[in-house]
Amino acid sequence: MTDITAYDVDLDASWSIGDKPHGGYLLSTMIGLALDEEHPHPMAVSAHYVSSPDAGPATVEVERLRTGRRVSTSRVRLRQSETKVEALFSHGRWSADATPLWSTGGPPVLPPLDDCPRAPAERPGGQRIGQLDHVDMRVDVATTMWAVGAPAGRAEVRAWLRRDDGDDPSVLDLLVFADALPPVTFDLGLMGWVPTLELTVHVRGLPAPGWVRAVQRARLLQDGWIDEECELWDSEGRLVAQARQLAGYRVPDGWTPPQAS
Amino acid sequence: MTDITAYDVDLDASWSIGDKPHGGYLLSTMIGLALDEEHPHPMAVSAHYVSSPDAGPATVEVERLRTGRRVSTSRVRLRQSETKVEALFSHGRWSADATPLWSTGGPPVLPPLDDCPRAPAERPGGQRIGQLDHVDMRVDVATTMWAVGAPAGRAEVRAWLRRDDGDDPSVLDLLVFADALPPVTFDLGLMGWVPTLELTVHVRGLPAPGWVRAVQRARLLQDGWIDEECELWDSEGRLVAQARQLAGYRVPDGWTPPQAS
Repeated sequence: MTDITAYDVDLDASWSIGDKPHGGYLLSTMIGLALDEEHPHPMAVSAHYVSSPDAGPATVEVERLRTGRRVSTSRVRLRQSETKVEALFSHGRWSADATPLWSTGGPPVLPPLDDCPRAPAERPGGQRIGQLDHVDMRVDVATTMWAVGAPAGRAEVRAWLRRDDGDDPSVLDLLVFADALPPVTFDLGLMGWVPTLELTVHVRGLPAPGWVRAVQRARLLQDGWIDEECELWDSEGRLVAQARQLAGYRVPDGWTPPQAS
Repeated sequence: MTDITAYDVDLDASWSIGDKPHGGYLLSTMIGLALDEEHPHPMAVSAHYVSSPDAGPATVEVERLRTGRRVSTSRVRLRQSETKVEALFSHGRWSADATPLWSTGGPPVLPPLDDCPRAPAERPGGQRIGQLDHVDMRVDVATTMWAVGAPAGRAEVRAWLRRDDGDDPSVLDLLVFADALPPVTFDLGLMGWVPTLELTVHVRGLPAPGWVRAVQRARLLQDGWIDEECELWDSEGRLVAQARQLAGYRVPDGWTPPQAS
């Protein structure tokens, strides 16, 4: 009744955070397999992280739900016997030279690249943040004072991003970048893991060559769940992706939120 | 291999916009069938509108992807022979008395209810906006000047919302409300239909009894696609849902954006 194509993949352990593969890496791997020549660009991608896979062999199943002229929609499942990540996505073709018909807001204001240190993949204590070996992330230190024990209390992180290999960003890289920044909970002094339950990325255009500017913010921590909103802007100052995730957080006994200065 | 439960439903024509069923109505119908006693509340809902169904008989298929202690995840498909709407959603249990651990921003500022007229279901020209017979929407007229030919050019709409039957809002009603406001393109003088490609709703808590305040905004119109962000705040001033959709728009020949005053 349904027509599903299955692909064998090998999840690369170098992308893992501790021993859990990075969510953006999983998503770009899944979506990359489901694109086609007629509809080569992701437009809206919605992923639910059902349970964390391990690095190593996995299967990606793709079901085409509709092939349209302008947009197609597919369902993609990553499984290791059980379903690990399930995603829906719509894909089409972005114009390379699109300009805004109407817009509001602008890219995040960042210090010059030379004033932004690269975020290390190795965390104190020895845990490896795998995506930071693949993504060259230069952070605005005003938003990463938690690294020296002085969180700003604003739940906001800003950074420059590019691929570690120096290549220009692809549209699939945006799915990685949209999930690459440190959790904004760090800026509130909550240093625990923030597992993604759901991540939606709306791609808005093809990224120009060069560095991408990223800002990640939250609006509400409540009842164990936080929203994290990430915007990606390309080197020409164009909004190229809007992402939001719902993620879990934990609060240590006795924690109180820092006051924003 | 997969365990799918199918339900027969009858899509109520009174919810249609013209002859197309309202997206939020479809979503709340689908999700309502997939909840269970252990995980009765939607948390993150992602829907891709593959093609528009007709009012009348349809089938809703539910596949449980994982049953967890705290969260379960399901896939839901609405079909009329072909797939019309496909959704993923994660569901759990919100605490009735949750309070923000940390938050930023606040509810939209609206004129008093008595100063906000009810949006009529009947549009000039005779097209019926079905959800406005089911949702009592009282609009901030500063954001609906397009109705008298004077769009403000801000791509923002604000309104009070409740059920037409006067009942207090349920958590499923939030899925309807998140897609109930007029397209923000109206505020730019673009009066055409804005079909939703993808809609994600993050429910953030159970709504208190009484009116819900809603604000809908856009950030970018480009290459035929617009983001519409909708926030819902309950009568106690709590953020109860964050939604964003990617939708299509069309521009008449010769259109230029109005200047915000």
